[in-house]
Amino acid sequence: MLLTALNYLGIAAFAASGALIGVRKRLDVFGIWTLAVLTGLGGGVARDILLGVTPPVTFKGWENLTVATVSAAIVFFFHPQVGAVRRTVDVLDAFGVALFAATGALTAIHAGTSPIAAALIGVTTGLGGGILRDVLVNEVPLLIQSGEMVAIPALAGAALTVAVDGLGGGPDWALILGTAVAFGFRILVMWRGWTAPRAPDGGCSAHRRRRGRDDAAG
Amino acid sequence: MLLTALNYLGIAAFAASGALIGVRKRLDVFGIWTLAVLTGLGGGVARDILLGVTPPVTFKGWENLTVATVSAAIVFFFHPQVGAVRRTVDVLDAFGVALFAATGALTAIHAGTSPIAAALIGVTTGLGGGILRDVLVNEVPLLIQSGEMVAIPALAGAALTVAVDGLGGGPDWALILGTAVAFGFRILVMWRGWTAPRAPDGGCSAHRRRRGRDDAAG
Amino acid sequence: MLLTALNYLGIAAFAASGALIGVRKRLDVFGIWTLAVLTGLGGGVARDILLGVTPPVTFKGWENLTVATVSAAIVFFFHPQVGAVRRTVDVLDAFGVALFAATGALTAIHAGTSPIAAALIGVTTGLGGGILRDVLVNEVPLLIQSGEMVAIPALAGAALTVAVDGLGGGPDWALILGTAVAFGFRILVMWRGWTAPRAPDGGCSAHRRRRGRDDAAG
Repeated sequence: MLLTALNYLGIAAFAASGALIGVRKRLDVFGIWTLAVLTGLGGGVARDILLGVTPPVTFKGWENLTVATVSAAIVFFFHPQVGAVRRTVDVLDAFGVALFAATGALTAIHAGTSPIAAALIGVTTGLGGGILRDVLVNEVPLLIQSGEMVAIPALAGAALTVAVDGLGGGPDWALILGTAVAFGFRILVMWRGWTAPRAPDGGCSAHRRRRGRDDAAG
Repeated sequence: MLLTALNYLGIAAFAASGALIGVRKRLDVFGIWTLAVLTGLGGGVARDILLGVTPPVTFKGWENLTVATVSAAIVFFFHPQVGAVRRTVDVLDAFGVALFAATGALTAIHAGTSPIAAALIGVTTGLGGGILRDVLVNEVPLLIQSGEMVAIPALAGAALTVAVDGLGGGPDWALILGTAVAFGFRILVMWRGWTAPRAPDGGCSAHRRRRGRDDAAG
Repeated sequence: MLLTALNYLGIAAFAASGALIGVRKRLDVFGIWTLAVLTGLGGGVARDILLGVTPPVTFKGWENLTVATVSAAIVFFFHPQVGAVRRTVDVLDAFGVALFAATGALTAIHAGTSPIAAALIGVTTGLGGGILRDVLVNEVPLLIQSGEMVAIPALAGAALTVAVDGLGGGPDWALILGTAVAFGFRILVMWRGWTAPRAPDGGCSAHRRRRGRDDAAG
């Protein structure tokens, strides 16, 4: 069943992103494993809590934990040798977000929520694991970093999943199209290096820079 | 209905505080929006999860998301030009905490919880969004910072809301008095610059300072 | 009843660890109290949310809050005078994790979950409060730090609790053995200073070091 398969794939992608950051942060093997498992399973747990599914599906068997563990082990032994770690994490994160946004939205529809709730729960499923990962390693989440635009592609993909399923396209096409749009949109953003505007300055830069220092000191 | 109106106001206040920190951290427009939305909606989601309301109310419509978005947009275009950013965030945070402590407590009573549970759920609703905001931007939360005393006014406001409603004062007066006391109490703390005691030293300061360095190094 | 008693003991241990970190970070008395309460009660709230117990047990009375408050007060006035703060936190954390892993697992069994779910919910109960504590004070959690191996002893203790109870050993022996193994295992790790392997290097160290800088800069 496609929903289950894509869900495993999402867990593997997120777990790999967590493991890779663990390698980069020089954690030991247990730290890497813990980070990978929390990153891989976090989104699904958030989804089930929002849907009132208790205990969450992840807790009912060893499958999800095993997928995350295998993914972490592969990264541990074969992590990229060249300096592309940061971009690799970003691509894995983009893939995980896209898969979880689509599968989360479809799972929510199956659970009987409204289309709006399904789309928003899909987004939350997509973002949950990555937030947990970045907060645990004490970094500002990718989610709000400049030039990443993480939430918008997730919202587009989740909304498309809900729309395709609701318009009679069937769950398989909904998942495939939702994932493809969410992933493609975000990769496009990263590849083109689109930068989004910051808040208007409203004063001279020197003034702002001074204010920044005041804030940091305050 | 007053409960709904004050709830929107709380979302707007918290979303503005998140957006303002996003501006200060030089996030781009999407990062600012994401941070504002998570800050504005976080407390209400925590409340509904604690009450077993699934999916949380926020996920069932666009209203809350729209309020947070509009609030973020206003901050984005008209954020304060002068160096008062940090205090503005604190006042918005104080207002959001007060509103959510009162509305969270009243929502919990309406859901049939005990008075004690209602007061504590009110506090959690008030604190949830701000914790999420500060953790996401990688700062020690206002909640535990010295001289802020965030939790005590929230507890006072939530408890008063529960008491007024329980003693027959009606929900409107409960909300108004609870919010006013929680907000006024915290503003008073900030305005007077009341400082609370730290742990007794128990040794000479030089010794402590050396220990601090050891800990930081350890 | 042993389950209740050990649960209070777990809350006290975690609250003390939170309060001690608060003292070390020079928070004021309200910050210390808030951090202690969130650390002490966080794991139990996570457990109840995963089990669908709403509102969580902690919110239904003052008992847990009082235990955490008393524990924080003791630390506040009698915190260790010598430089052993970091190790004391680690031992309290180990004790709290062990107690909550065992009591969390048993509570889950009583709530009717499968043995697998009970073990995993026990682990989550044990880890929840400490994650919250470390994230709030803006530190990389003990959970993933090198040489701590936090999750493995918790998993061993929770699984043993489930096994002993399932094999007819009764809840009391399940709790005692589960706690003892989880605590003894982790203390052994800390005492022997066992270090776990990091990811294989795969290149020259100079190259890796350069890459680390690139990542930090990127």
